[in-house]
Amino acid sequence: MNTFGSLFRITTFGESHGPGIGVIIDGCPAGLPITAEEIQVALDRRRPGQSDLTTPRSEADRVEVQSGIFRDETTGTPISLYIRNQDQHSHDYSHIEHAYRPSHADFTYDQKYGRRDFRGGGRSSARETAARVAAGAVAQKLLDQHGIRVSSYVSQVGAVAVPVGYEQLDLGLIDSNPVRCPHPETAERMADLIRQVRDRHDTVGGYVTCVVQGVPAGLGEPVFDKLHSELGRAMLGINAVKGFEYGSGFSGVLLFGSEHNDAFYTDEAGQVRTRTNHSGGIQGGISNGQDIYFRVAFKPVATILQSQQTINDQGEAISLAGRGRHDPCVLPRAVPIVDAMTALVLADMLLRARANRV
Amino acid sequence: MNTFGSLFRITTFGESHGPGIGVIIDGCPAGLPITAEEIQVALDRRRPGQSDLTTPRSEADRVEVQSGIFRDETTGTPISLYIRNQDQHSHDYSHIEHAYRPSHADFTYDQKYGRRDFRGGGRSSARETAARVAAGAVAQKLLDQHGIRVSSYVSQVGAVAVPVGYEQLDLGLIDSNPVRCPHPETAERMADLIRQVRDRHDTVGGYVTCVVQGVPAGLGEPVFDKLHSELGRAMLGINAVKGFEYGSGFSGVLLFGSEHNDAFYTDEAGQVRTRTNHSGGIQGGISNGQDIYFRVAFKPVATILQSQQTINDQGEAISLAGRGRHDPCVLPRAVPIVDAMTALVLADMLLRARANRV
Amino acid sequence: MNTFGSLFRITTFGESHGPGIGVIIDGCPAGLPITAEEIQVALDRRRPGQSDLTTPRSEADRVEVQSGIFRDETTGTPISLYIRNQDQHSHDYSHIEHAYRPSHADFTYDQKYGRRDFRGGGRSSARETAARVAAGAVAQKLLDQHGIRVSSYVSQVGAVAVPVGYEQLDLGLIDSNPVRCPHPETAERMADLIRQVRDRHDTVGGYVTCVVQGVPAGLGEPVFDKLHSELGRAMLGINAVKGFEYGSGFSGVLLFGSEHNDAFYTDEAGQVRTRTNHSGGIQGGISNGQDIYFRVAFKPVATILQSQQTINDQGEAISLAGRGRHDPCVLPRAVPIVDAMTALVLADMLLRARANRV
Amino acid sequence: MNTFGSLFRITTFGESHGPGIGVIIDGCPAGLPITAEEIQVALDRRRPGQSDLTTPRSEADRVEVQSGIFRDETTGTPISLYIRNQDQHSHDYSHIEHAYRPSHADFTYDQKYGRRDFRGGGRSSARETAARVAAGAVAQKLLDQHGIRVSSYVSQVGAVAVPVGYEQLDLGLIDSNPVRCPHPETAERMADLIRQVRDRHDTVGGYVTCVVQGVPAGLGEPVFDKLHSELGRAMLGINAVKGFEYGSGFSGVLLFGSEHNDAFYTDEAGQVRTRTNHSGGIQGGISNGQDIYFRVAFKPVATILQSQQTINDQGEAISLAGRGRHDPCVLPRAVPIVDAMTALVLADMLLRARANRV
Repeated sequence: MNTFGSLFRITTFGESHGPGIGVIIDGCPAGLPITAEEIQVALDRRRPGQSDLTTPRSEADRVEVQSGIFRDETTGTPISLYIRNQDQHSHDYSHIEHAYRPSHADFTYDQKYGRRDFRGGGRSSARETAARVAAGAVAQKLLDQHGIRVSSYVSQVGAVAVPVGYEQLDLGLIDSNPVRCPHPETAERMADLIRQVRDRHDTVGGYVTCVVQGVPAGLGEPVFDKLHSELGRAMLGINAVKGFEYGSGFSGVLLFGSEHNDAFYTDEAGQVRTRTNHSGGIQGGISNGQDIYFRVAFKPVATILQSQQTINDQGEAISLAGRGRHDPCVLPRAVPIVDAMTALVLADMLLRARANRV
Repeated sequence: MNTFGSLFRITTFGESHGPGIGVIIDGCPAGLPITAEEIQVALDRRRPGQSDLTTPRSEADRVEVQSGIFRDETTGTPISLYIRNQDQHSHDYSHIEHAYRPSHADFTYDQKYGRRDFRGGGRSSARETAARVAAGAVAQKLLDQHGIRVSSYVSQVGAVAVPVGYEQLDLGLIDSNPVRCPHPETAERMADLIRQVRDRHDTVGGYVTCVVQGVPAGLGEPVFDKLHSELGRAMLGINAVKGFEYGSGFSGVLLFGSEHNDAFYTDEAGQVRTRTNHSGGIQGGISNGQDIYFRVAFKPVATILQSQQTINDQGEAISLAGRGRHDPCVLPRAVPIVDAMTALVLADMLLRARANRV
Repeated sequence: MNTFGSLFRITTFGESHGPGIGVIIDGCPAGLPITAEEIQVALDRRRPGQSDLTTPRSEADRVEVQSGIFRDETTGTPISLYIRNQDQHSHDYSHIEHAYRPSHADFTYDQKYGRRDFRGGGRSSARETAARVAAGAVAQKLLDQHGIRVSSYVSQVGAVAVPVGYEQLDLGLIDSNPVRCPHPETAERMADLIRQVRDRHDTVGGYVTCVVQGVPAGLGEPVFDKLHSELGRAMLGINAVKGFEYGSGFSGVLLFGSEHNDAFYTDEAGQVRTRTNHSGGIQGGISNGQDIYFRVAFKPVATILQSQQTINDQGEAISLAGRGRHDPCVLPRAVPIVDAMTALVLADMLLRARANRV
Repeated sequence: MNTFGSLFRITTFGESHGPGIGVIIDGCPAGLPITAEEIQVALDRRRPGQSDLTTPRSEADRVEVQSGIFRDETTGTPISLYIRNQDQHSHDYSHIEHAYRPSHADFTYDQKYGRRDFRGGGRSSARETAARVAAGAVAQKLLDQHGIRVSSYVSQVGAVAVPVGYEQLDLGLIDSNPVRCPHPETAERMADLIRQVRDRHDTVGGYVTCVVQGVPAGLGEPVFDKLHSELGRAMLGINAVKGFEYGSGFSGVLLFGSEHNDAFYTDEAGQVRTRTNHSGGIQGGISNGQDIYFRVAFKPVATILQSQQTINDQGEAISLAGRGRHDPCVLPRAVPIVDAMTALVLADMLLRARANRV
C-alpha cells in the first residue's frame, strides 16, 4: 500500500504528470505549530533546478495545505498537503508509451497491473518523493520538540568519498555547497565528477550518510519493527536505493566480537554512554541514546541521454534514448528525502513509545 | 509489534527461558499440504549443537502444532506452532540480572520498558528466531506451489569470502558442510577461522547471500512496500544484522548509469530477460522475473567468553564475562533464518499480488 | 485513524470549512473502468438542496480526480478524489467558537485534542461523508463486475414505518421520491412528518434498511472481521448512527431456536438456499449466498433552530440557537452514505477472499 | 484476520477439538501487575457447567501463561495465554462431517475454504471466545489503573425483560444468580423460561446490556474508529450476536431533536455533565465522561436437540439432530465475553489516546 508508518502515518498519491501529487498525514498529534512556509522550505531543498549539478527543470513545487492545520497548529485531524504539477501537458511521452526503459519500472508495472501511466514514469517517478519531503517537514517539527536533529549528507559520489567519519565533520556545512557534502574539498571533487558525467550524457550514484542526534534511549520495537529495520525499510523505499547499513555495517565483519562490542560507562554527568559506537546508537533494535548513523547506497540514475537497446511491450527489440532534462546524479536532491524519511520513522517511534509502560 | 507480514502474517511470542516460544501464522490459504515433520526439518537446520562450529548446547526444539492444520492440510484458520524450552530452570542468570552486557539489549530494554526478563536475554534472545524458522517452513510450502526456490548460504566469515558470484556456485552444496557455504575450499577456510576464533574465546561475523529463483514478474508493491524494502526490513529484523544490499548494492556506485542499466531482450523462448542483473531481479520495487539476490551482514556475536568492562543497572562500573555455551559465529545457523524470512516476505507478496487487477 | 478497509482501503481528509475534503482510495485493482462523471452521480444523491425536505443549502460538490485513473481506467495506484468547499469564508461561526453545542462533538474534540476547527463542525461535520460517497462509487464499480447490487432505502422516519419487508418492495422505486422510500404511501407520510418537524424548527430520526443482492457465498473473515462486524462498524461510523442489526436482529430474541434456524435445501437449479433468512445472508460471519439485509438507526439531527441551554468552553452556562440552513431529517441524504459504506465493505471482502485458498 | 485491536492487540487461535485454544496479547504496556489466577477468575465465569441453566459439560479451562509475564508483571513483550482442550478425542463427530447444520457456519466455511475442521464446529465454535475472555482479564487490569469499570448483565431473555434502566439497578448483584441478571425477580423469571426451553430441547436468545463507568472524556477516534464503532464491531464479532445499539439506540427515533439532545451543564464540583444521556456517553465517536451504555442482541443458539431438515455437502436432503450437551441459552455465559471485548476496546483506546497531543 501507499502508506508508511504506524501511528504517525502518511499516505502519498499522485503521478508525475497527472494533476498533482500529495500526501495525507494521519496521526500527527494536535497542537504542533507548523506553517505552509516551513513545509515549503523543505520542499525547496528537493526542488529541481537548484544548481548546475541537478536537472535544469525548474519546478515551483508550491505546497497547499488542504486540511488539518488551523491557526498555524495541527488539530489532530488528517493533514493533506498537495503539490500541483506544472505544465503537465507540455511534454510528449509517446516515445515511451510502448517502450520498456532499461532499469526503470515500465516493464514491472505492466507485468503487475497490466497497464501504466507512462507519462514521465507515472507513479514510479521520483517526483512522488516530493510528497514524502513535505510530510517529513511536519515530522521534523515533532522531533524539534524533543531535541532530535536529523542531518544527512552526501558522503560518496562514484568513487569520490569523504575521507573522515561524521564525527569529524561540521554538519552545519551540509547546505554550504550544491553537492550537500560538508567536507568542502571533497564536495569540489564530487561536483567535478558530476559535471564530467553530465557532459558525457551519463549518470553516477553514491552514498548518503545520515546522523541522528539527540534521540532518547528507548525508541524502537522488538522484534520485527526494530528501529533500524524501520529505517532500513524507509531508505530502501526511496527510488534508486540499493543498500542500507547502520553502525559498523558491512565492514563490521572485519572486527572480532571483543573489538566490536561497545563498552558501557557512566560519564561525569551521570549519563550512560558507550566508549565506541559500532552499534550505531541502536541495540536490540532500540535506541540507546548514542548517535544513530547509517549509510544509504544510491545507484546511478537509469535515465541517460544515450541510445540504449531494449524492447517494447510487444517484446520487439528497439533502441531508445532519454530526452529532456534529467539529473546526472540524484545524491544532492536525495539528501532531503533521506532527512524526511528518517524524521517520519522517528516521529512514529516517538508516538509508539508512549505505550511502553503503564 | 511482534507481527510480520500483511496477508501472510506471523506473530511470534516467548522468551528464551520462559516455558516456550511460538508463532501464530494468520492468513495462510486453506488447502496447503504441510506436516509437523516438514516444519521440524527446517527447525533442525537452526538447532544448536549441529557441529563443532556452533554452540554445543543441545536443544531438541520439537515443534507442536496447536491449531490450523487438519488432516495434514491448512484449513485457513490460524496455525499455532509451539516449541517448549528445555531445562528452563537449569541455568543461573543471577550474574546478569543487574548487569548491562555490552552490545546486548539489556540496557535498551530497561530504558524502554523499565524492566526485562533477563534470563538468557529473554525476548531479545536469538532463540526467538526459531519461531520464525518454523513459520518460514509453512511459507516455503506455499512458494513450492509456485516453483519459487530460496537458497541462502554463507558467503563471507570475517575476511574469508567466497571468491565467485552465486551464478558460479552449485547451490545444492549448501548443506554439504557445517558452515553452509557451497564453495568447499572457502568453507574449509571459514571453518578454520571459526575454530580459531572459538579457541580465543572470541566471535566473528560475516555475510549471508540469498538467491531466490523462479519468482514470477509482478511481485512487490509501490511505493513503500517495495519487494526489496520488505526483504531489507525482514533481514534487518534478524538479530545481529547490520546491513542489507540487493543487486549491485553498495558497489553499484562504482558503475556509471550506462554500465549499470540492465538491457532488456527477448530470448528464444519468447521470455523477457535482461542481459545483466544489477537490478537484482527487482525494478521499481517489483520483481521482473530474473533471479533475486541480496546480501546480509551479521556482526560478530556480542556474547564472548572474555571479561569485559561494563556497568550495572545502577550505573556502576563492573566487569563481566560470558558463561555457558555460545556460538563463536552465528552465520551457519543464520542461513535457515534468512531462508525463512525471505520465504515469509515472498508468501506475503504472492497473496498481495492477487489483488493487482480486477 | 481516518482509514477504513484492509485491501480496498480509503483515507478521508478535510474539514467542513477548510479548502476542501477528499479521499484517497488505495488498493483498488487495476483495470476498473470508471469516470469522474460516474462518481459525480453518486455525490449528487448526497448533495444538499435536492428537495424541500433537506437543507436548502445548495452545494455543487464537484469531484476532481487527482490521481490513479488514466484513460478512464484505474491503474492500481492511489486514487485521489477531491471536492472543493464552496464559500468557505462566507459564514460567521464566531457564535460557536467557544460554545459546546448539545449532542455535537465540540466538547469531546476539545477534550481529546485541546482544540478544534469550530467552523461548521470542522472534521466532525457530516460533510466528511461526501468523501465516503465518492469512494463508494468506485467500490460499487468493482461490485458491478461481480453482479452485486446494494440497495438502501428509508424504512422509518420517527414513528412512520414501511409496513412490509424489503422482499415485498420494488427497490427500483427508491429514488422515485425525495424521501428515498420505495413504498409510495409511506413516503408521503414521511414527507409530511419531515415538513411538520421542519416547520417546528425541530429534527427527526429514522431507519435506513439496506439490502445486498448477488453476494457470492464465502465473503467475510472469522473471527473478528466477520462480514456483519465490518458492516456494523461501517454503519456505526456514519454520523448520527445509534444502532445496527442484521437479519432477525433485536427481534430475533422473540423466536426460539427451532423457529429461528434457517433450514438448508437445494433448489431445482442445484443452488443451496435456505427456506427462511433470519441469518440475513451471513452465517458464522461469512456470506451464504442469500440476500444480506440490515437496518441502521439514525438519531434526530443535533442542530436545531431553537434556543438550547448549554455551556461554553469556560464551563459557563449559555443559551445557543442553531443558525443557517440545516436538515430537519438526514435520512434521505443518509441513503447514499449507507450505500457507499456497504459497497466499501464488500469490495474489501471481495479482495480479501482472493487469499482464501492456495 | 484473527487479530483485534490496534495498540492493545490480541490474536486468537485454536479449534474446538484441536489440542487447545489461546491468545497472544501484543502491545500490553510493561509494568502491569497480573497473575494467572486473576485471568482464571475471568475464565471461570465463562466456563461451561456453572449451573443447570447452561451446558452440563464440565470443562476445567485452565489458563497457562507461556510468555510476557515475569515476576507477576507484564514485561511489554507478547503475552501468550493457552488453554488446553479436554478430552479432545472423546467425541464422535462423524455425523456432522458431511452435514451442514442449520444456521451454523458449516456451509459457509466450506464455501470459503473448501474444507473445515468439523469437530465441534472447529474454529467457528464459541469455544474460541474463552481466549478472548482470558485476554480481556488482562485488559481489565489496565482499566483498573484508570478507574474504569465494565459491568455487563443479562437484560432480556426471550420476551422476559428487566423493567428498569441500568441506573436503577445494583450492578453488584450481577453474579448473585446464575442468569447474571441484577434484577432478582426478573432473574427468576428468566431462569424459569430457560429451564422450560431446555426441557423442550429448544433454545432462546436475549439481550446483554453493558455499562462502562469511569471513562475519562476523550477516548475514541474520528471518523471510522469511533468509540461506539469499535464497541459495535467487537460485539458483532461475538458468536450469535445480531444487533448492537448504544445510548438511545433504535428507540431514539421516537424522540425529536429538541428532546434527544443532551444539555450540558457544569455541576457543583466543576465537572461538565449532561442532564440526559441519550448519547450513551459518546459524542462524535469520543467519550464525554458520562456513563457509556449499550445493548447487544443474541439470537437463540443454533444447536437444538431436535431433528431438523438440512442438506449434506453433496446437496442432498438429510435430517439431523444435535447431540451431546449444549446451552439452551448462552446469555449467562455471554456476559463475561461482553465484559472482555469491552475491556479490550477501551484498553486499546486508552493507549491510542496517548498520541492525541504533542
